Amino acid sequence: MRDFSTDHRWLSINTATVRKSRGVDQPLTTIIEACVQRGIRAISPWRDQVAAAGLPVISKLVKAHGLELSGYCRGGMFPAVDAAGRQAAHDDNRRAVDEACELNAACLVLVVGALPGALTGKAAHKDIALSRSQVNDGIAALLEYARSNNMPLAIEPLHPMYAADRACINTLEQALDVCDALDPSHSGALGVAVDVYHVWWDPKLQQQIERAGKNRLLAFHVCDWMTPTTDLLNDRGMMGDGVIDIPKVRGWMEGSGFAGYSEVEIFSTGTWWQRETGEILDTCIARHTSAV
Amino acid sequence: MRDFSTDHRWLSINTATVRKSRGVDQPLTTIIEACVQRGIRAISPWRDQVAAAGLPVISKLVKAHGLELSGYCRGGMFPAVDAAGRQAAHDDNRRAVDEACELNAACLVLVVGALPGALTGKAAHKDIALSRSQVNDGIAALLEYARSNNMPLAIEPLHPMYAADRACINTLEQALDVCDALDPSHSGALGVAVDVYHVWWDPKLQQQIERAGKNRLLAFHVCDWMTPTTDLLNDRGMMGDGVIDIPKVRGWMEGSGFAGYSEVEIFSTGTWWQRETGEILDTCIARHTSAV
Repeated sequence: MRDFSTDHRWLSINTATVRKSRGVDQPLTTIIEACVQRGIRAISPWRDQVAAAGLPVISKLVKAHGLELSGYCRGGMFPAVDAAGRQAAHDDNRRAVDEACELNAACLVLVVGALPGALTGKAAHKDIALSRSQVNDGIAALLEYARSNNMPLAIEPLHPMYAADRACINTLEQALDVCDALDPSHSGALGVAVDVYHVWWDPKLQQQIERAGKNRLLAFHVCDWMTPTTDLLNDRGMMGDGVIDIPKVRGWMEGSGFAGYSEVEIFSTGTWWQRETGEILDTCIARHTSAV
Repeated sequence: MRDFSTDHRWLSINTATVRKSRGVDQPLTTIIEACVQRGIRAISPWRDQVAAAGLPVISKLVKAHGLELSGYCRGGMFPAVDAAGRQAAHDDNRRAVDEACELNAACLVLVVGALPGALTGKAAHKDIALSRSQVNDGIAALLEYARSNNMPLAIEPLHPMYAADRACINTLEQALDVCDALDPSHSGALGVAVDVYHVWWDPKLQQQIERAGKNRLLAFHVCDWMTPTTDLLNDRGMMGDGVIDIPKVRGWMEGSGFAGYSEVEIFSTGTWWQRETGEILDTCIARHTSAV
């Protein structure tokens, strides 16, 4: 297992972590400069942040600084109530692949979607098996395009508390079953993003990380699970402040061959998004060396 | 699959559902009378409610009305920081078995516990595997006592969002693995309580219900998952108001031989606990016939 205690060369910042510092939307250009100033070598930006700044601007900035992208957030949201909706999702996902290629991302992260309409409180149906089938079909179709563009797709199993509205792939085992079905050769074109927040509770976590193996372990996301957790979405903790044994999970990842960045992704309306960008990043650096 | 549409003979009320009607703690005696008035034939009371009224009082009342107990809530909370703490939990769980016997409950429901201290925000450690081992040992010890008293133990897998503070058994598969280890003969002394709120998201739900089989399907709890869910504990929905396909799950249960009560268990600070006891119960009866 790599020694993270003396530097932060394997730290990546998911830019959602500082997207609302002091409660104010932060331009991605500002976030990038703040990362670069601190010797952070990798980021994982969100599509809306890139769009707001302009893809050419961000592409140029990333290249000028020699920044790497540990991932690009995000594609997915495949299920829809009708064929037109699913086609629109597919078209949008192809654009996400294009953007990820332009930014030379390590992978496009997929938050696969769930019951159509649930995210706005109006689920169109209750058939989660149907949504899972549409997710499977959506990934299959996108995989062809992504493969031809050499952009790996990383399915991110989301915590079961998001099964209704954000992602109906909720365990690593389930994600890997999809990988087995769609990419039986373990080509590396399809894999998983392992976020400790989503999977730490899983009694089969170690077993499934080992099952995934190097070719399918495309990303590793860290934050912490707080007790109590006061909000289902935006109360993630800083590494070391919660109950997740992050080094143990990282050990399993690296034991299976993962050698990429440890990407910090924290959504935190009440705590971290109340701080300054610099303070948040400095804390990420410190905790990367002490708690990851 | 039984027809629930014309009466509520298979409805049970978990008394937590009306424990705080209008925001005020309701005496269990009052709750029982309100159930009996409505022809509800079964309840599942909580230990603190029974203790507040007095076990002899409740025992007499239950017998006088010919009420059945679809379960007794709850034993468990096995992990502790030291042997003395685990012995205290064991002793308390034996008392829970005794009470369940006195009330002639169908089973004692086990919420098994997780990281010691996490429920009060101060987890003593992060080793969930250790807690799981202590849970296994705790159930094994209690099972001897429960078996000698003919009181079945029902392990309730809790939603993974409670893995840190309430229960480190989080899937039906995991619960059944414990059953296999401790009661390989499927004697009926050890089984599971299937609560749709906790397990509806699980892609292996149907498969694991079938694996459990009649002898291990000891209880069936219903409520609904709301979108959005605004609180991790106390924002459960009334059946039919959320996204869970409850009849589908009940069909799987009954297809595997379950023929017991459908027990309504709703914790809802903001919505249902603001209503009168009678209104809540009448709604449970109506939804039992239309949405379960």
